[in-house]
Amino acid sequence: MSNTDVTTVAAYAAPAPQSPLARTTVPRRPVGDNDVLIEIKYCGICHSDIHQVNEDWGQAPFPMVPGHEIAGIVTQVGSAVTRHEVGDRVGVGCFVDSCRTCENCVAGLEQFCLNGATGTYPIGPDGEPTYGGYSTHIVVAEDFALSIPEGISLEEAAPLLCAGITLYSPLTRWNAGPGKKVAIVGLGGLGHMGVKIANALGADVTVLSQSLRKKDDGLRLGAKAFHATSDPETFTKLAGTFDLIVSTVSANMDLDAYLGLLRSGGTFVNVGAPGEPNSINMFSLIGGNKNLAGSMVGGIAETQAMLDFCAQHNLGADIEVIPADKINEAYERVLAGDVRYRFVIDTATIA
Amino acid sequence: MSNTDVTTVAAYAAPAPQSPLARTTVPRRPVGDNDVLIEIKYCGICHSDIHQVNEDWGQAPFPMVPGHEIAGIVTQVGSAVTRHEVGDRVGVGCFVDSCRTCENCVAGLEQFCLNGATGTYPIGPDGEPTYGGYSTHIVVAEDFALSIPEGISLEEAAPLLCAGITLYSPLTRWNAGPGKKVAIVGLGGLGHMGVKIANALGADVTVLSQSLRKKDDGLRLGAKAFHATSDPETFTKLAGTFDLIVSTVSANMDLDAYLGLLRSGGTFVNVGAPGEPNSINMFSLIGGNKNLAGSMVGGIAETQAMLDFCAQHNLGADIEVIPADKINEAYERVLAGDVRYRFVIDTATIA
Repeated sequence: MSNTDVTTVAAYAAPAPQSPLARTTVPRRPVGDNDVLIEIKYCGICHSDIHQVNEDWGQAPFPMVPGHEIAGIVTQVGSAVTRHEVGDRVGVGCFVDSCRTCENCVAGLEQFCLNGATGTYPIGPDGEPTYGGYSTHIVVAEDFALSIPEGISLEEAAPLLCAGITLYSPLTRWNAGPGKKVAIVGLGGLGHMGVKIANALGADVTVLSQSLRKKDDGLRLGAKAFHATSDPETFTKLAGTFDLIVSTVSANMDLDAYLGLLRSGGTFVNVGAPGEPNSINMFSLIGGNKNLAGSMVGGIAETQAMLDFCAQHNLGADIEVIPADKINEAYERVLAGDVRYRFVIDTATIA
Repeated sequence: MSNTDVTTVAAYAAPAPQSPLARTTVPRRPVGDNDVLIEIKYCGICHSDIHQVNEDWGQAPFPMVPGHEIAGIVTQVGSAVTRHEVGDRVGVGCFVDSCRTCENCVAGLEQFCLNGATGTYPIGPDGEPTYGGYSTHIVVAEDFALSIPEGISLEEAAPLLCAGITLYSPLTRWNAGPGKKVAIVGLGGLGHMGVKIANALGADVTVLSQSLRKKDDGLRLGAKAFHATSDPETFTKLAGTFDLIVSTVSANMDLDAYLGLLRSGGTFVNVGAPGEPNSINMFSLIGGNKNLAGSMVGGIAETQAMLDFCAQHNLGADIEVIPADKINEAYERVLAGDVRYRFVIDTATIA
């Protein structure tokens, strides 16, 4: 691959909305002076990949190559690159560029770039399609490639680039740590990382899950307690208990009931993405100075801090590695909640 | 008044739900060892007084003596009192006692006492009626009487005990100050104190009001800008502008539109009390790591800090002093929005 050529690389793509994914090829831009070429080794399957393929979040360009939980090795660097070298272990998350000059970029909130961050897929702010990590290679600006420290395998690191940072950011922002009672709602790809990270931060962690089906897993991952939200008694028994609740659920929920589980001054953070508006009684917030917050992935520096933290605490995702030809089956299993806790594609099987 | 006698004092009370208020007498408890007897000089009329009289917030005991914005002079102290002396200028706000031992009381959040704070009116946690400040005297535990510093008149200080602390608490908690853009929604009894306090804290203050009717007042009170929320352009023009919005509106509102006015990481605090559940799209919080918070008055130490701050900055409420026989007319005018910005009863007219 030379410095100036557009290159064609192997990928798995949905040719049209709601279609099964199939092998294809997509173009990657030439490696610019500030770019790195990454040989992708693993890519996680995020639930949002399925939403995007199904156009649940609006029209998108096709063919679509999903994937924003990318881990691989740098195989080429542009002439001006200083952060990475050939052979480095790197990751790419939900976005691959931003304006770098707006107040959000300057504040390290590149995900909220006021001029529009460039999504890893399906589209950039210029309207041009971008292709994600279900592929053998990707070219990204060096500043948007994170270093994956030794001590986490690439396959276990891949899901950290979305699931990991999505939980790390609100947990640290809202001070999960020693002496704090934290609940994680939903034990899936996001939630299982929430339990691991909150526990590593020193918090006292409880899982709130629809049923007790995953109780053993929750305790093994670091939770001290596990309660079923289908049991109304959970909401009376645990009233006023938590300093922080992070919900990974992407369905509408009885917010007032969950806010009742918070101590005064506590915060309920939603990182799931319910499609429909939710109802909330303002008295649920006013009584007890409570907060309802949202959170979306994290900035570049914060994502690097998360990776460093996870390496230091030996935290990777619990994964099931699959070959590319099992992607469509994996999508079905994600929708059925049949994964503990993240599918990761071995991208060597795409080529 | 001796140390042990129940005393009968003059008051204005609603004899029954939704009834006009009339002169009556109510009992005050003997001055206990840790109590102070206060000769009430002024009492503010809070919109919530009207809600309580109308039983908008549920059944309550009658006759009801409203009033939780009390300013007066200590005329007797119990044998163990150390915080106050006869002749001291003191104020009483929304609650007159709490358990003092639960985690919220210990944390200075007496308003959220887990064993139930004793409301100034209409009722204590024991179910016994309590009588508010539309009266000539009140007996309260010394720890729940705040010192009103020299430099604020008692009549201008009275509304600080509810309206002042209701705005001061979220403004300081959410870091209103130099370099911060703060919007106050609604320019009434609460809102006008919000503008004054946020301005004194050093923030850049904007008023968002239904119309431009009170624009001159808003600017005089310290706002740099004033916009009408009835103009849809306000929501496009000011998108992404504010670090903090404090809404004093007690009607349902288009939360998603207001959340769009916040910068990334910004907070919308509701101190109004809409009776009906509100709708919210979670994406309005997730996109931009935004927060929706509630806030209710403040603890004792925080209320004292507010009074000290207001005295230091020469902040009192803008008031219209009325005699007691104008209370019912004042209620009508509050409901019509015809007060700039707080009615204060001269309680000498009750006797």
